[in-house]
Amino acid sequence: MTHIFSGNPLDRADALRRDPAWIAAATADPTGLYLLFANLQVAVRGQRQLQLGWLSRQEVSSLLAICPPPVLLGLTAQRPHFALDVTTHTAALDLAAAGDTDASLRFEDCRIAAMALPAADTGIVAQARSQIDWHRRHQFCSVCGEPTRPAKGGYVRSCANCAAEHFPRTDPVAIMLIVDGEHCLLGQSAGRLARTRTFSALAGFIDQGESIEEAVRREVKEEAGIAVGAVRYHSSQPWPFPSSLMIGCHGQALSREIQMDPEEMTAVEWFHRDQVKAAFYRNTTAADTDLRLPGPIAIAHHLIRAWLEDELPAAG
Amino acid sequence: MTHIFSGNPLDRADALRRDPAWIAAATADPTGLYLLFANLQVAVRGQRQLQLGWLSRQEVSSLLAICPPPVLLGLTAQRPHFALDVTTHTAALDLAAAGDTDASLRFEDCRIAAMALPAADTGIVAQARSQIDWHRRHQFCSVCGEPTRPAKGGYVRSCANCAAEHFPRTDPVAIMLIVDGEHCLLGQSAGRLARTRTFSALAGFIDQGESIEEAVRREVKEEAGIAVGAVRYHSSQPWPFPSSLMIGCHGQALSREIQMDPEEMTAVEWFHRDQVKAAFYRNTTAADTDLRLPGPIAIAHHLIRAWLEDELPAAG
Repeated sequence: MTHIFSGNPLDRADALRRDPAWIAAATADPTGLYLLFANLQVAVRGQRQLQLGWLSRQEVSSLLAICPPPVLLGLTAQRPHFALDVTTHTAALDLAAAGDTDASLRFEDCRIAAMALPAADTGIVAQARSQIDWHRRHQFCSVCGEPTRPAKGGYVRSCANCAAEHFPRTDPVAIMLIVDGEHCLLGQSAGRLARTRTFSALAGFIDQGESIEEAVRREVKEEAGIAVGAVRYHSSQPWPFPSSLMIGCHGQALSREIQMDPEEMTAVEWFHRDQVKAAFYRNTTAADTDLRLPGPIAIAHHLIRAWLEDELPAAG
Repeated sequence: MTHIFSGNPLDRADALRRDPAWIAAATADPTGLYLLFANLQVAVRGQRQLQLGWLSRQEVSSLLAICPPPVLLGLTAQRPHFALDVTTHTAALDLAAAGDTDASLRFEDCRIAAMALPAADTGIVAQARSQIDWHRRHQFCSVCGEPTRPAKGGYVRSCANCAAEHFPRTDPVAIMLIVDGEHCLLGQSAGRLARTRTFSALAGFIDQGESIEEAVRREVKEEAGIAVGAVRYHSSQPWPFPSSLMIGCHGQALSREIQMDPEEMTAVEWFHRDQVKAAFYRNTTAADTDLRLPGPIAIAHHLIRAWLEDELPAAG
């Protein structure tokens, strides 16, 4: 399935971007389109019908002279699309002039924008936000400490001092709905607001030197004290906060007694299918529950739905 | 399935390692065991029966004073296990004294060692090699360029200047056997020696802002010009060169005509199942083929076998 933040329609032009002359031509291309980011918020237009706030090469020409090099996202046909980080130069940005009168340009949190944008555009936002953030945080070489410079349209940063090449990082995260018969295991991370009874699937970064399945078992053991047997992959979702790859799985519980890690989690509980169903289809059932579940932007929503609707893939 | 480089039996002790006092005690623990690495090669003992070359706390005490801080891999019961990078101090290392007379300590390439070590030990090698390499390449803060220091037993590096925290990176790689009826698509990367006819599954790093399935389709399109439809996850494998997570998939081809990227690949071809079978079971068939396929250390081997033996999971 195609989650929000995937479905990016741009051709990343991996072969073309190896040629610095081609990159230079693309950057000078008068048909090029530019998506601005300020403090990792994305430029958008419109109220009821949100759109990405693409600007023309001409509209950003003064910004190009003062901002960090634009990141080449990719092409539609021959037309280059760039992301441009204007964080340090928002004062130079005349939003009223750049936008049109009906729907002027504004900056929006990427998560909020993703819930209102056309699906394909959310994939562009995911790529652009992750790449902008990575460049912001990798101005220096982790090997020797000297400044780095972008190349390949932003697909690499190179160190002139020690010749190290640094590539954008993508952090794989295991997110898993653990199931035991008619119950599933849901939790609240310590980082989140615990005022409401919003529960989600457990999740954690995959460590170095472990498989997806091992990460699922380790994280559930650490966070909830539950042993997990069979693990089944469901789907994956890019999650650009800042650059995660959510790898969604279902797992079979081998034990029942929860031993929660109180530093990572504020609550971990087993929930019966009926209660989860009532919370999931809140608008269409009369069932009374204070349980809140994540919305369709989150892969956890789809892991829960697959379990409720018995859409789990057959055992492999 | 459990691949080579997974199945690490150590408890990574995520909760315990948050406490600096506990880390200090673990580092002083006289029962602690230390696995040495020199130039990313792992210390081993034995010839026919290879073993990891663990050393005692006492045997490494002089090294601990001069080498980078040891990386806490994890525990068996209460016993801490560390990896220690002795690259810059191999001269100080008296291998004859450290080893025993029967099977003295030596350093071995991790890939070669993994083919001879007990399965669970290859998981330890994967974790240790990735972590040692990451520390070597992240002595400086990518945000501000100042030196960083390890904490949490090596699970994070912190910058005293800008307070940035840096976490070990794991790079997800899509590796995929593309199938069209009785044929599968195999290739030779440009990086490899092309003298022999060794072919493998296509593979590539997952970019920022794309799902696993999107990465499979993009990479196959880029490297071979083939369109891919349904993608099915098979299994995953940590690959510590330096810190990849191989995500193995099967994909359904939607086109036949190969258009190879000559910079990335030296050859991409369709192979009939009979020829692949003959090459795969070389020792047990009389069939004549010059095709060579990857061995069981590689996840590609298992993707090919699953296809040959029709062990693909049912469609999800």
